[in-house]
Order: sequence, then structure tokens, then C-alpha cells
Amino acid sequence: MRIDVLTLFPEMFDGVFHSSILGKAAEKQIVHLNAINFRQYAGNKHSQVDDTPYGGGGGMVLKPDPIFAAVEDILTPRSYDQISNNEEEAGLAEGSSESSEGVKPPRVILMCPQGETFTQKKAEELSQEEHLVFICGHYEGYDERIREYLVTDELSIGDYVLTGGELPAMVVIDSVVRLLPGVLGNETSAVTDSFSTGLLEYPHYTRPAEFRGWKVPDILLSGHHANIEVWRREQALRRTWERRPELLDKLELSKQDRIYIAKLQQESKRS
Amino acid sequence: MRIDVLTLFPEMFDGVFHSSILGKAAEKQIVHLNAINFRQYAGNKHSQVDDTPYGGGGGMVLKPDPIFAAVEDILTPRSYDQISNNEEEAGLAEGSSESSEGVKPPRVILMCPQGETFTQKKAEELSQEEHLVFICGHYEGYDERIREYLVTDELSIGDYVLTGGELPAMVVIDSVVRLLPGVLGNETSAVTDSFSTGLLEYPHYTRPAEFRGWKVPDILLSGHHANIEVWRREQALRRTWERRPELLDKLELSKQDRIYIAKLQQESKRS
Repeated sequence: MRIDVLTLFPEMFDGVFHSSILGKAAEKQIVHLNAINFRQYAGNKHSQVDDTPYGGGGGMVLKPDPIFAAVEDILTPRSYDQISNNEEEAGLAEGSSESSEGVKPPRVILMCPQGETFTQKKAEELSQEEHLVFICGHYEGYDERIREYLVTDELSIGDYVLTGGELPAMVVIDSVVRLLPGVLGNETSAVTDSFSTGLLEYPHYTRPAEFRGWKVPDILLSGHHANIEVWRREQALRRTWERRPELLDKLELSKQDRIYIAKLQQESKRS
Repeated sequence: MRIDVLTLFPEMFDGVFHSSILGKAAEKQIVHLNAINFRQYAGNKHSQVDDTPYGGGGGMVLKPDPIFAAVEDILTPRSYDQISNNEEEAGLAEGSSESSEGVKPPRVILMCPQGETFTQKKAEELSQEEHLVFICGHYEGYDERIREYLVTDELSIGDYVLTGGELPAMVVIDSVVRLLPGVLGNETSAVTDSFSTGLLEYPHYTRPAEFRGWKVPDILLSGHHANIEVWRREQALRRTWERRPELLDKLELSKQDRIYIAKLQQESKRS
């Protein structure tokens, strides 16, 4: 997979693109990660990428021309060739130089508060693509023509205000790249993820068995695997019911699950 | 404000803590940002911070001892003094060296999928604090005793799976720091934020007035400010109604707003 990020702050991505899972996936050439400063596409004397809004009001608005020019440059064969020259450093996946000739066009993703709320399902969908382009604004709004005529997806990671699209782009990239084959080792992919099972995770415990007087539940030390499985399922159900009950509505629960939840409901009525 | 982040990947924070708004806020000494590798608190030969789960199963679990030790070290006066020596570099706010003596204890925030969903309201609440400590796990789960006996808040930034708590911590930190007095300049704070007004933003346009045949709406070039205000309000209502109708339920709408939404509803019935 190839991922290009258009941003005015490419240096924000240095630490994240080179550490941990993303760094390893790039090393293994499973993903090619590229942060591009779209100011180089401004095409005017002062490299101006934003301007005051038509109709007045505060704030600045990102101009359409530099963003269109940057995305189009990414899609030209020349650009692909240039990147191929840095293949080792950048971790470009094999065969990407052919992508410019008639292969699937990239998804062009605008990170913005007005976007569709990002979910695990969307991460799975994006992980099937060959090429993602992220557009990150910073403080500014976007000229509406970028939204209307260039982007294929608008995404928001949640209902809070951030200073730019850079952190949201990193979040989406992390969640997508970890789904690519070969990225997670067995030891990590084996972890039961909260949003994969649909329930919040049950409590985890590790050594020491007693820490400052706080003990690990006896059942986990019992060695009785069937009982442990039941306990974990019940704890996951309890935590989800207490904290995110709306998640339960989306699940197909077993008869045993439903009996346990009925018990939780009765307990809460009594207290 | 002082912010400490406990992580196994402190280098992930380099780019983000030194760029843009966070970098400027640290330079101005409005916030002190500190990424701490808690592996140094492992206190065992192999600096082991995680271990296999009691009761079996895949994945690793973060041990309680290094995390407790790291948080307690952050709270000792010695630690505050050490940081004061690096004051210029680190951007420590004035007076923080007194914080160890009887001031408000920090909020200790665990980033995890089981946490409360982060919102703008929570960002506003956290921006009132003097000291935030973030605990970021990576791949691993947390020993339950960390959750029960150490943390004050558990936060999740959304319903998707990430490889660690680092990106979520950056997201929360960005949203909190931009609310601190003196961080945003007038030119940026003047922007009408989506989640501040409760509506998604209206479309923005800037120069050129015509780009590849796509024109800016005539009304924005009319100079008629009252009409522009009405148009913008209607566009914000329309976008919210189309994309996030549930946000409208939380708002007190004017009579004019309600008439416009009724019109949208009729339009959609007809088509």
C-alpha cells in the first residue's frame, strides 16, 4: 500500500512514521509512507496556500489550486518514478511503479470535523485499497471545491476540536496499516481487540500475583480453563453493559450471555 | 499546565510536541510537555515491563509495578526540581516547582478502548487542570490494578483499534492545550469551530473566484452581509441535517432554523 499525506507540517509525522508498527511496516516494504508539504505547489511568489474567505468572517481558507496540483502530481508517473529511486529508504511496495498505468485510482481522504465518523469498519474497508492520499488542513477551513471535486472520502475521528488534520490522519493510518497482512506478528495479533469482538475487553492480570496487597482474582490462578473462559466472557459483558450498553444492541448474544445480562439488570435494580 | 506521558515509545512524540500549536505553547511556557519511557522504572534485570496474562491466552499485559513507580516518581519534589533545571528547553510553566507541595493532585489518564469516549466537553474539563499524566500501553493490555488503584480517568478517542495509546494521547493533548489561554492567536481562535457551535461548519470559499470552471456562489461575492449570514446559517443547518442529524436534537434552534429544516424535510420527501 502507498500512503501520501498532504500537510503543511510534514515534520509532525517523523516520529510516528518511524516508530513501532508503522516504522516496521515501512521497513518491511508493506507500506510506503510519504508526508508531502503542499506549500511547494502554491505556484505563487509568497508560497501562499490560504486566503481570506469570500463573504467575510474570521479565519483563513485553504486555496483549491495547491491541493489539486499536489494530488495530480502524486498521480503522475514521474512522481512514482522519483519515489521508486528512494525505494529502500522509503519502503515502497513492489510493483507500485505500475500503479500509474490504469490501476485503481487512489482514495483521496479529507480529514475534517464534518466528515463521516471513522470506525473499525471503515479501517477494514480502507485496508483493501492500494493507494490512500490524505489531505490535512491546519487551523484553516478548506475551499469547498476541494471537497466537491477532488476528495472521495471525508473523515472525522471524533467529536472534539483539534488544531489540524495531521493527528487524525495518523490515527486512520495506524488503524489501517495494522490490518495489512504481515504487519502484526502472531504475538500481537492474538490479542482480542475490543472492537473486533464487539465487546469491551475483560480485565487482564499479570505478575505479581499480589501487588501492594491487591490480589489477582483466584479464578485466574485456578488453572481451570473452562471456568476462566466463562469468567472472562462475563467480565467482558459486564464491562460493556456498564460502560457502553449501546454496543450490546449490535451483537448476537448467546442464551448464556442473555441470562448473565438479565442478572446484571436485576442486581442494578436492587442496589 | 504540566503534561507527562508515560510510554515505551517517547520518540513518537518528538515531531508532534515540537511542531505547530503544541511546539509554540511549549516555547511560550504555557505548557510543559514531557514524554517518559517507563521502561526505566521496570526495576528488574531485563527491564521487563510486561508479562503473560494470568489465566492464559494470547498477548502480553503491562505489569503494575513500573507504572505505579513512574507515576509516583513524577509526583516527588525531586522529579519536579530535575525538570526545573531544564526549564528553558522544556517550557515549564512558572511556579510549577511549588506544585509538589500540597497542590491539586494530577489527573492520571489511561488511554484505552474501554474508556469513556472523549468529547469536546471533556477537553474543556481537562483544560482546567494543572497537571495531566497520560499512560499509554502499546499492543498490550493493562494489569487491572493500574485501572482500579492508580488512574482517575479512562479515555477512548473513538471506536477503532489502534496499536497503542500514543496517538490517542496526542489527540487529547492537542485538543486540551489549544484551549489554554494564550495558545491560539486571534486569527485562528476566530474560526467558528464545528463542535463549539453545535452545527457542522458551512462551506468556505476563497480565491480564485473561478477555478477550472467551478465558481464561488454569487451570494458570497454580493457584499450583502445580512444575506450572507442567512445563507451560511442555512448551509450549516443543511450539512448537519444531512450528515449528523443527531447533533440537531441537542441544540436550541430558532424559529427561522426550524422553518428551514422543515423545508429540507419536505424537499427530501419529494425527491
